[in-house]
This record gives sequence, C-alpha cells and structure tokens, in this order.
Amino acid sequence: MSKPTIDHRGPEFEALTHRLLADLRWICGTTDDVFIYPASGSGAWEAAIVNTLSSGDTVVAFEQGFFAQSWAQVAVRFGLDVRLQSWDGRQGVTPDAVTKLLSDDGNQAIKAVMIVHNETSTGVTTNIKAIAAAMQASGHPALLFIDAVSSLAVTDLRHDEWGLDVTVSGSQKGLTLPPGLAVMAAGPRAIAAHESATIPRSYWDWDDQRAANAKGSFPYTPATNLLYGLEEAFAMLREEGMDNVFARHRRFGSAVRAAVATWGFDTVSTVASEASQAATAVIMPDGHDADALRALILERFDMSLGTGLGEWKGRVFRIGHLGDLNALALMGTLAGVEMGLGLAGIPHTAGGVAAAMAVLAEEAS
Amino acid sequence: MSKPTIDHRGPEFEALTHRLLADLRWICGTTDDVFIYPASGSGAWEAAIVNTLSSGDTVVAFEQGFFAQSWAQVAVRFGLDVRLQSWDGRQGVTPDAVTKLLSDDGNQAIKAVMIVHNETSTGVTTNIKAIAAAMQASGHPALLFIDAVSSLAVTDLRHDEWGLDVTVSGSQKGLTLPPGLAVMAAGPRAIAAHESATIPRSYWDWDDQRAANAKGSFPYTPATNLLYGLEEAFAMLREEGMDNVFARHRRFGSAVRAAVATWGFDTVSTVASEASQAATAVIMPDGHDADALRALILERFDMSLGTGLGEWKGRVFRIGHLGDLNALALMGTLAGVEMGLGLAGIPHTAGGVAAAMAVLAEEAS
Repeated sequence: MSKPTIDHRGPEFEALTHRLLADLRWICGTTDDVFIYPASGSGAWEAAIVNTLSSGDTVVAFEQGFFAQSWAQVAVRFGLDVRLQSWDGRQGVTPDAVTKLLSDDGNQAIKAVMIVHNETSTGVTTNIKAIAAAMQASGHPALLFIDAVSSLAVTDLRHDEWGLDVTVSGSQKGLTLPPGLAVMAAGPRAIAAHESATIPRSYWDWDDQRAANAKGSFPYTPATNLLYGLEEAFAMLREEGMDNVFARHRRFGSAVRAAVATWGFDTVSTVASEASQAATAVIMPDGHDADALRALILERFDMSLGTGLGEWKGRVFRIGHLGDLNALALMGTLAGVEMGLGLAGIPHTAGGVAAAMAVLAEEAS
Repeated sequence: MSKPTIDHRGPEFEALTHRLLADLRWICGTTDDVFIYPASGSGAWEAAIVNTLSSGDTVVAFEQGFFAQSWAQVAVRFGLDVRLQSWDGRQGVTPDAVTKLLSDDGNQAIKAVMIVHNETSTGVTTNIKAIAAAMQASGHPALLFIDAVSSLAVTDLRHDEWGLDVTVSGSQKGLTLPPGLAVMAAGPRAIAAHESATIPRSYWDWDDQRAANAKGSFPYTPATNLLYGLEEAFAMLREEGMDNVFARHRRFGSAVRAAVATWGFDTVSTVASEASQAATAVIMPDGHDADALRALILERFDMSLGTGLGEWKGRVFRIGHLGDLNALALMGTLAGVEMGLGLAGIPHTAGGVAAAMAVLAEEAS
C-alpha cells in the first residue's frame, strides 16, 4: 500500500480494477455484480438500502445486537417502515422466525429482511444458508440483505449458491486490510429492485459504479492505495486457500472458547454451533467492570481488547480472532487476558492459556 | 501509514482524533465544525447537500467545468431545483454574476450557491473571497458552498475570515495523501440550516459525527491508517509554513505556464490572475489528440498526465503541480512533456523546459 498512487484514469489502473472485481466476485462466491467504495462498512449498509428501496417500504430486522440495530437505524433514517423484531441476541436468528414473519405477511409488504451474519458485538453467528433456504421455500419475494462485515473471508459464505440478494462487508476484518473500503455483492433480484427504487442517492448509486467499472474505473476518485492492499489480501487468501482460512478461524475460535471456559466465564453466545469464529464476547463476573480490565491490559501489555457495545457496555470484553492472525499471536492475546485477570484480581481459574494451547497443539498434530 | 491499525475506540485513538480535528480547523481557517469521512471528495459534495437542504430547495451552480457540473448533478439527484448557469469555463465565476442572480431572486428562493474554488478540469481558479464578500453585501441569505478539493493547502482559503458556509475537500490533493478521506468545514449558518434540512441521510449526518467527535471517536470505523497520514501531512505543512506552501505552488504554476507559453500552446485559463496554482490544462494544436500524446508519454517516460474531462476530452492534457512536489520533480514532468511533444511530432517551439528553469532559478536566487 506504500507504492506511489497511480493515475486512476490510466491503463494500469484499469487492469487493477478488473482484477479486483473478479477477485471480489470469487471471495463472495458470486458471478453477479460487486461494488467497491471508499467508505466504511456502514457505507455499504446505506448503499444496500438506498439502491433497492423506496421511502415507506417495509423491512425486517432483528435485535441481534449493536450492529444489527445500527443497520436498522439507517433504514429508519431513510423513511423505511422498519419492523425491528425483539430477539434474544445471545442466539442466532432462526429460519423459523423468518418464515413466520413472512407467512404472516399476507399482502407481501415486506421488501427486505436484514440479517447480520456474524454479529461482532456478541460473537453470535446466524445460519444464513438456512435462512436463505427458508425464505426461498416460503415463496415470499422479500430480498435478503446480509451484513457480512466480520464474516466475509472468515466463515463460509456463498452469495450465489445460498441465494443472497445483497451481501455487504468492509476491508478491515477478514480481508485483513486497514479500514477504508466498503465492498458488496448484489444479485439479480437486487439489481431488478434497483430499477424502481426511489430513495435519492448519488455517491452509492450502483448505475454509476457499473458504468465506470465496465471501463475499469470508478465514478470518482477511488482509495487507490487500499486497493493495492486489497489485491494483495486476495492473493494471500488464495495462497492459504479458503478452506484453510475457514479452518484456521474455526481452530482459533475453539482455542479462545477453551480458554474462556477454563477461566470460568460465559460467552454471550449460548449455542455452541453459533459461536463466532471471528470474535468472542466474554461476560465478566458480576461486580467487575470489563472496561476497567481492558484499560489495565492496555496499560500493562499494550493490547486493546474490544469494548462491550450497546447493552453489553461494561459487561463484556471481546477477543478478536480473525484476519491476518496466526496461532502464536493468538496465544499472546490469551496470555494478556489471563495475566490481566490476575492483576485485576478478578476471580477466575488459571489455565485458560494452557487449555487453548492444548486445542491448538492437537489440531496441529 | 504503515503502522499497525490501532483500536478506534481506544484512548490513543481519542487523542489522535482531537489532534486531527484541531489541525483540520487550522488548515481550513476556521474555529467552527469540521468533519472527516472515509470517502472521496465527492462524498463531501453529497454531505454538504444532504446535511443542509431539503428536496425542492433551489441551488445555483455555474458551468465552470467537469467537477462543478458533476457536483450540480449530485444536487439534481437529491431533488433540488438546480439553476445551472451557463458560463464560459475558461474564466472564473465573477462576483457580479453571483450578485445579479441573488438580486433577481426577490423572494429569496435560492438556498445555496455552489462554487468550485479551483476547477481541476480547466485549471481556472475563482476568486472565492470576492464572491463571498459580494454575497454578504447582497443581504441575500443563500449559503455559500465551496469545493476546495484541489485548492485546500494549495491556494489561500480562509473559511471563517471570508465567511464561507461549507468548504469541502479530499485527502489526495494539497493534503498530499493517497485518496480515501473527505474533509469539510461547516460554519454556523450551515449548522443552523442542518436543523431544518430534511433530505434523508445517515452516513453523512453531521449530528452523528459531532457527537462521536466530541468523545474523540467517529460514528463508524474510520480509515485509521489514512488518518495517521493526515497527521503527518499536517505536520509537514506546518513545518514548511503555509505561506511557503502557497508561494511554492505559485512558483510552480508560473514555471509551468512559462513552459506552455514557450511551446506555443494556450491554456484553458484565459485570465492570468485566475490561472490555477494546482494544475494547468493545456490545449493541443488542432488536429492532434491529447490522449494519444498522453499514451505516448506514459509508455516512453512512465508519466501519466491528466486527461481532458468533459467537453475537453481529447483536446487538453493536464499537468498537476500541487501537493508533495519539489522543483526538480516538476522539471522532470516538464521535460517529459517536451520530449513527448517532439516524439509525437506535435508542432511546438522547444525551450519550455529552459523557460521554466529560468522562472524557478530566478525565484530561488
């Protein structure tokens, strides 16, 4: 990314654009349209909404956690009728819940269902494949929008095969880059919805992107140096192999959960099969402040754990275990937590680090 | 910018945010609100509009060139009544033209006037100070929006002193960074307009930014590594001194124009005092294609000149002379053009490089 910034209207850039869009299709598992914006992942949230919907349209979201609710709030701001479903965020959204909503929607008012694949604030993963299948079986025409910010290139996700309509993500999670790029895939039903969608839009407009992308450019100045990094990230992921990338994240998730269980703490996630391979949200014992522990660990060991978000503020800390991370860096992370727990005088059972090592060593053997 | 990406919700980041916002105020010449987005400069165009206006509002823009007209198009897309004024883009917008529009607007329908300070497609600079003064003298309450994408930190611009309402820019010009950040300043009248503006918005919303910025954070994941670069860019500009930065750009502009005059070509800019200090658009002799010359120079000398945009496509090439550039790199640029002209068999008078050297040497003595 430190290379000089080339002319974004020149031939070298044109070739780069075509390579990046092809690689983004590959990583999303799609042959459909993909888009790259200079933006955060929340920009892609907005792009999904303004490109496909009209003011007054009904959409459904679930109280999965901080990010799902923030996305729903974006929809509210664009004048959508957001049916935010009460939900126990410690579990993933179930296909049955979605099916019931759609079957109750006799006149098919619901235009889109917005689901977060991996809710980064809770470390709970929702079975998107099953939800997409349930929606298809229902015969209801609602679009399925997926927030894959912390799942893309971390956990298996297949835009075309599963029949997703819009998949959004960002550069800074599984794609291993600094923040600054929003990426998304849009299937044919989303593109069709775009034709009649009337929310005003300019920066996020898919037509502009498609027209420019077809010529190997972007409709305005792209974040060139992050695009260099994106190309390298795709190359690194291809070299490791996506099956290996997914397995590595599963292994790291298991190791972290082994440590947390040994310490004697609960995770926010309560269903084993839904535990996130990207991040684990750990619940503090009653009477202990997670942010005080985080501050101590930052000060003593120069490591910044994730803060609790929304309703979990102060009650959880989060361990990220995704992206460009290897087993020994993860062990350093867990050692920092275990030492921090000791220094903070938080009741726990030592041995979490050893338990994680046992998991990693077994899988490496 | 290659440093590890720190926690954007941590204390180190909080201090960085406060430093950056203070420096951005300094560079814009304002004590008012400033905002930083992960976006291109065109994102800041959109932010200016959606934060302050409502569908149906009337705004004025002038046919200054490709970027002014693109910005006007953004306004059209958000349902504004855009009075796009016919204008000879080879000259800057005059205060008289703005005054006449406002005095003809008896019922004060015009909510904002959108002007590009330095139209990068033509190399023509508009006297913003004079236009702002004329607007204030008119007593008309229209807001003044300035595109300072290629003028901020290149040419003198004083948001507060001149009485600008919204000033927008990007990271990749005078701020010397790769693209990926949009920056803007908003004065009290713009903030007041924000209170009643009804265009739906989320990503660009100033309220979210202000609330988060007050706590040293951003409302969503910021482009952290570009922010590291922004801090260094401010430090470099401060070290050089803004008077010196402006003088350097004036010197480089003079040198380029001396070369172009020697070659015997016209620039798009026809008024000497309006010639851009950021970029010069050079008109090709009749019958010669600017893009063919650009392709030849790219192939032979690995230098990408700016393409003609909009109505100037194929008729002009553009020499950028802004940002992190020194005299000798500029001389290399001009040598590439002069050799390219010779190789392409384009009629011209040799000696442009020598003329530029004379300008630079005289000013260095």
